[in-house]
Amino acid sequence: MVFEETVVLDGPFDEVLAATRSALADQGFGVLTEIDMQHTLRSKIDKEIGRYVILGACNPKLAGAALDVEPQVGALLPCNVVVHEVEGTVHVDALDPGLMVSMTSRDELAPIAAEARRLIGDALAALTAT
Amino acid sequence: MVFEETVVLDGPFDEVLAATRSALADQGFGVLTEIDMQHTLRSKIDKEIGRYVILGACNPKLAGAALDVEPQVGALLPCNVVVHEVEGTVHVDALDPGLMVSMTSRDELAPIAAEARRLIGDALAALTAT
Repeated sequence: MVFEETVVLDGPFDEVLAATRSALADQGFGVLTEIDMQHTLRSKIDKEIGRYVILGACNPKLAGAALDVEPQVGALLPCNVVVHEVEGTVHVDALDPGLMVSMTSRDELAPIAAEARRLIGDALAALTAT
Repeated sequence: MVFEETVVLDGPFDEVLAATRSALADQGFGVLTEIDMQHTLRSKIDKEIGRYVILGACNPKLAGAALDVEPQVGALLPCNVVVHEVEGTVHVDALDPGLMVSMTSRDELAPIAAEARRLIGDALAALTAT
């Protein structure tokens, strides 16, 4: 579902979040949506969790190409990148774009998903390099 | 990936979009995100597609329960419901919440996913009933 390796960083949380946005932008991914799940759960059902933000990242060129192949693929867009607190560290998980292929059985999506995977992988790698 | 049956309606598009939001709300799903993919692709890469909106629907109680089981499940949240034009009709597709189980192999998520699936299914059914 997600990349095999979760990126684990020491935080602080907001710096990791900003670095994640920046790393995604460097690879051509705009952040179209941002959900603060901690705030959502607190305000809606009075439930407490640690910091938890879901970024919806989209590379317009790849998204457009994928939609040309399979109009239903939007159900798997944008590619979610999750930044969340885990026991004093900050984890960054990304949905594996390969899911576009395995879930739709459309082989024409394979090169598009592979390119998205490479770019998001590079973004995650850049986080650990800094 | 998506529900077996796409809901196909005659439109107009904006009425279907409003009805979809309303049907989701009736089942306890708030719309946390909304992506106008037509606008995004037009403004970012000058590409034209039909009307295409991705709604990110979230039932806070079910999302909170799922995160308690598997913190990485946020990569599959919120549940996307896609409203898009197809040859003069409007299609509504929803990501199958069952994906939470098949993608994580966490059986404890099964009852949560089943409940989410039932509620979203009811929302889609309400669209065709009106």
